[in-house]
Amino acid sequence: MTNIPEADLDDRAWLQESTLTHGVPEAARRMALCGPADDPVLRTAAAEWARAVRAACGESPEPLAADPGGAPSTPRVVMGLLSAMPRGLREDAQTALASALSDEAYAILPVDGQGAAVVSRTPAGVLYGVFHLIRRLRLCEPLHEPCVSSPKNAWRMLDHWDNADGTIERGYAGKSLFFRGGQIDFDEARVRDYARLLASIGVNAIVINNVNVHETETRFLTEAHLPGVARLADVFRPYGIRLFLSINFASPVDLGDLPTADPLDPRAEDWWRAAADRIYEHIPDFGGFLVKADSEFRPGPFTYGRDHADGANMLARALAPHGGVVIWRAFVYNCLMDWRDRRADRARAAYDHFVPLDGRFLDNVLIQIKNGPMDFQVREPVSPLFGGLSDTNVMLEFQITQEYTGQQRHVCYLAPMWKEVLDFDTHARGPGSTVAEIASGKLFGRPQGGVAGVANAGDDVNWTGHSLAQANLYAFGRLAWDPSLDSAEIAHEWARLTYGDDPDVVRAVMGILMASWPAYEAYTAPLGVGWMVNPGHHDGPNPEGYEYSKWGTYHYADWQGVGVDRTMATGTGYTGQYHEPVRSLFEHLETCPDELLLFFHHVPYTHVLHSGKTVIQHIYDAHFDGVEAVAWMIEAWRRLQGRIDPVRHERILARLEDQMQRAIEWRDVINTYFYRKCGIPDARGRYIYP
Amino acid sequence: MTNIPEADLDDRAWLQESTLTHGVPEAARRMALCGPADDPVLRTAAAEWARAVRAACGESPEPLAADPGGAPSTPRVVMGLLSAMPRGLREDAQTALASALSDEAYAILPVDGQGAAVVSRTPAGVLYGVFHLIRRLRLCEPLHEPCVSSPKNAWRMLDHWDNADGTIERGYAGKSLFFRGGQIDFDEARVRDYARLLASIGVNAIVINNVNVHETETRFLTEAHLPGVARLADVFRPYGIRLFLSINFASPVDLGDLPTADPLDPRAEDWWRAAADRIYEHIPDFGGFLVKADSEFRPGPFTYGRDHADGANMLARALAPHGGVVIWRAFVYNCLMDWRDRRADRARAAYDHFVPLDGRFLDNVLIQIKNGPMDFQVREPVSPLFGGLSDTNVMLEFQITQEYTGQQRHVCYLAPMWKEVLDFDTHARGPGSTVAEIASGKLFGRPQGGVAGVANAGDDVNWTGHSLAQANLYAFGRLAWDPSLDSAEIAHEWARLTYGDDPDVVRAVMGILMASWPAYEAYTAPLGVGWMVNPGHHDGPNPEGYEYSKWGTYHYADWQGVGVDRTMATGTGYTGQYHEPVRSLFEHLETCPDELLLFFHHVPYTHVLHSGKTVIQHIYDAHFDGVEAVAWMIEAWRRLQGRIDPVRHERILARLEDQMQRAIEWRDVINTYFYRKCGIPDARGRYIYP
Repeated sequence: MTNIPEADLDDRAWLQESTLTHGVPEAARRMALCGPADDPVLRTAAAEWARAVRAACGESPEPLAADPGGAPSTPRVVMGLLSAMPRGLREDAQTALASALSDEAYAILPVDGQGAAVVSRTPAGVLYGVFHLIRRLRLCEPLHEPCVSSPKNAWRMLDHWDNADGTIERGYAGKSLFFRGGQIDFDEARVRDYARLLASIGVNAIVINNVNVHETETRFLTEAHLPGVARLADVFRPYGIRLFLSINFASPVDLGDLPTADPLDPRAEDWWRAAADRIYEHIPDFGGFLVKADSEFRPGPFTYGRDHADGANMLARALAPHGGVVIWRAFVYNCLMDWRDRRADRARAAYDHFVPLDGRFLDNVLIQIKNGPMDFQVREPVSPLFGGLSDTNVMLEFQITQEYTGQQRHVCYLAPMWKEVLDFDTHARGPGSTVAEIASGKLFGRPQGGVAGVANAGDDVNWTGHSLAQANLYAFGRLAWDPSLDSAEIAHEWARLTYGDDPDVVRAVMGILMASWPAYEAYTAPLGVGWMVNPGHHDGPNPEGYEYSKWGTYHYADWQGVGVDRTMATGTGYTGQYHEPVRSLFEHLETCPDELLLFFHHVPYTHVLHSGKTVIQHIYDAHFDGVEAVAWMIEAWRRLQGRIDPVRHERILARLEDQMQRAIEWRDVINTYFYRKCGIPDARGRYIYP
Repeated sequence: MTNIPEADLDDRAWLQESTLTHGVPEAARRMALCGPADDPVLRTAAAEWARAVRAACGESPEPLAADPGGAPSTPRVVMGLLSAMPRGLREDAQTALASALSDEAYAILPVDGQGAAVVSRTPAGVLYGVFHLIRRLRLCEPLHEPCVSSPKNAWRMLDHWDNADGTIERGYAGKSLFFRGGQIDFDEARVRDYARLLASIGVNAIVINNVNVHETETRFLTEAHLPGVARLADVFRPYGIRLFLSINFASPVDLGDLPTADPLDPRAEDWWRAAADRIYEHIPDFGGFLVKADSEFRPGPFTYGRDHADGANMLARALAPHGGVVIWRAFVYNCLMDWRDRRADRARAAYDHFVPLDGRFLDNVLIQIKNGPMDFQVREPVSPLFGGLSDTNVMLEFQITQEYTGQQRHVCYLAPMWKEVLDFDTHARGPGSTVAEIASGKLFGRPQGGVAGVANAGDDVNWTGHSLAQANLYAFGRLAWDPSLDSAEIAHEWARLTYGDDPDVVRAVMGILMASWPAYEAYTAPLGVGWMVNPGHHDGPNPEGYEYSKWGTYHYADWQGVGVDRTMATGTGYTGQYHEPVRSLFEHLETCPDELLLFFHHVPYTHVLHSGKTVIQHIYDAHFDGVEAVAWMIEAWRRLQGRIDPVRHERILARLEDQMQRAIEWRDVINTYFYRKCGIPDARGRYIYP
């Protein structure tokens, strides 16, 4: 059992339950549910509203009939299915929801003045609408303001990289919430709390185990483990969340059943069909499989001379009769590269592998594409595979867990980065062909689409190790639902929900969050070049840690300059994977954005950026500035002492102070590294260690 | 059980048992034992001789009475204790052994023409003499040649870094021979074979567990585990080998018995006395403790404001009544150093810590000093602590396991390096104050002394992973017994014993062994600078892998030059730890040996070496040459096909071919690294990857 001190407010994250000093609106005190009362998701919706009201004012709302009939109408909250709404409301809601494509869409309509109705075609939609109403309640916004909200993305998925032994690959927030000692073994109350948090931000799918599937997790498909998996699915189901498994492509062989896992061998196909049938007996709403195949030594169809489409489609055929989908990762590259070969380019790999297969994947397959072409660095261009595939379902993959962005020891609010990705215009169908339009499936009229995030939660009391990293989980869900949201507004909303309405607190939290990604970028590897980290664990600076490795992660710094020439003219040709005018933008030094300069070009240290600074001076300045930004964060946070409960205040202060030491280390190592390379002193005369 | 194919000759290492085509001398066919026949070590001696003769000619030697009395005298082998020898032989042997200080010394005397007597004051000495005679038998040397051999070092010790879970820290030859699954659990026959190998080279002490003592090994001192430890001691005892344990200084606390491990607290002293008493009840000839304290996060006396002498002496008092000793490691340094501080120097640490304590250690304490001041790099100067301590017992520590010298994937015969160390003249008492004289205790008239080697053996069929690494184990034992031996002669002896007398085979094996250390040095980190390895596992090149770490392992390469200024004039002052004239030799650029230049000096790449080359040209040349040397080794080995049994031939060929790839990687990474630093091209125009 997780032992959480009563007073630890971090456990409730953004679903705080303090009494609202300004009370609750009259309408909140009465509620009516429309629809089958035994529907688990509708029951959750009603229970969440009642819980929120009880927390806010100390009293449960009074249950009313949905249709007051002849009784005097009173302000109230009505929630339920469109089909079960009383006549007038139903017509209004039908009109409101007419243009909403998703069954998970909800409408909020005014009812009798200050009252509100939350209406959806599905129970899950009602639940999302109720969580919207709870936000309004906590933020003192009028409940009855009409609105319609429909998720942009059908799949809003969390990928857990949890292992059966309880460890989490790239996890920085304790141990797994789902597994212990090689078993599915969890604290049901804590997982339910987690499901609440996820439902409140619109997440509707969860992959419970690591894409690197080890021996034990391979057995999750067997009768021995499926009851355990089903128990976990039972906890998520009332929150509208479908459960997925990462699977091992070689399962038929590794479980000892077949001599082959060849996707074109009928025995393998039959094996997977039987496996799927078995799973759905235990979990009728099972979501499907996430697959890392032929990547970083994972098995896959290449073993049998088949391709990704062969492999994915075989699995898709097994799942299709049950409504399941296959999420097939595009993170495929040669991880035995030769650093000597400057024409080879890992950044090209996903596009080179998958574009030739465009159109060959079945309709219940989604290709999951990381936001950038490398691997979740603090700064990468958008993957050109968005816009490269037009006849294939895709899913955008973000990394919420901060593998390369501070490992939850540094605060690094990622929503601004994600927004840049979502808003990036690939020009695949002319202007407006943003990644958000592609991931959702809308641009190319695909039947499936979505956004996935690698989870950052574990069994730490505050879920995410660094309490401010809760904002990343929150923002992920909000953006997956609605990519048009503004990252600062999300931060604002999260700060108020989490820490209350003290304007100084909200301002400081917002300020820290919004300054954090730029600061982290500033004091780590410069100008998009990435990878200056310690190999393996990826924590802390090591400028040449990956420079001569087999991983394809080089920056080629020498006594004259630094950066990777990925141009068509003289480099790896990677820029050619983009549509015009993006291609030309990146191809030419004159137009390439400063922040990506070293990703696309090898330039002398004396090259002058658009900012007017030389590359070397930018490096020095950014590293000094980045540390200054952390100093400012600490000051800003210190000033909140006494205005935030001490447990949460001290926890974050300790992290910020630790971050300061780490930021100084980054600054000094990177500055010294470049100074030792080129011997050019800082133009502003600051001390750089020789 | 270890599964060793019958045909695998690697298992017998240098104690091969093939029939000798030239037969055996007549005298070998009769043997007599003098001394108590129930003495386990004497029994081993007799059994080994009988086994060797049986293997050589297919027949066991005929047992005779030691004293033929009136019977016609026949050529024979007599072995036994001096005190039990027949009259005439006893007098001759007494004379021969008179000048031998060690009780382990033995004499070989002619008996009746071609016969030979092996005589010692102790059973162990007899055993060593018998193994000498076996060497003569296998090498077709006359058995009766008179000789006296006395070990230079009283302690000839192997330090196993084996963990209870069966892993071996820095082990490259499989799993532990002693432990499995957290238990003392071993294949008795295999451990006995290992003991034979060790006795045959004169090893007389073995530490069975890692100096980094984990929770399980801490419990080896308890009644629960001591019977298991004793069973292991029982296997080693008949081979004259005493068993030691590495202990955890915090045991009294960690085992839950005391609130303190303060060495000046009588409770701690009593605790250790009781522990020692308990151990000796199980193992009457227990050797003692090896201790890594206050080093790399291991606990030690510093916790209580005490020093190393306080800690070591407390343990020594507990062991003294039983004749046990404490081996206390001098490998103590600050492993949280700041790379920015160029005045700090890890190389100084052992001297700075221990010289002030000189004279304070009890007589049954030995301070175990690594050969160099850093950590077993391929090239280091000799530790100045030799010659720094004159009133303290010391023990010289070599690393047989090839942590930094190729991890038994590269062939690297270490005897030439060890010889340089042993022969190094510290001038502590004027000329002739060699490390060999100091380690043995002779120079300063110390009561104890010795040489330890970190073991390179595991449960691999060939013991050492790389079959040629057997030569390192062999050479270690031979040099520990007699540091005056020549490393090429040892290689020659080992090659003939292991592979037989085919002169082409012997020449090739010798050639490869003798070329191997220079080659490895040539293609790895240059000119004594060291540490250009991947952090953690230490395999393969990573020129800046440790450059900005906390481990104190820097080379400071920049665009102008490279190396560590350890001079008194302008650097860390480390050179001042040596006696004159060594101090001045290292202090001055003009006299500093090329191979240690970058260890002692920071110089421009254009600095001209004594060899006449610039530093940068030396780097390029050495790296090209080093790879050429490996190519030559492969050719030389290939030519032996059909002249060595195929199992052993192919096994080594595979290692050499793998080494080639690794050597090329080293060459290219290091050359490119320096080329990128300075931009100076190869004067000979060879291609260096940019």
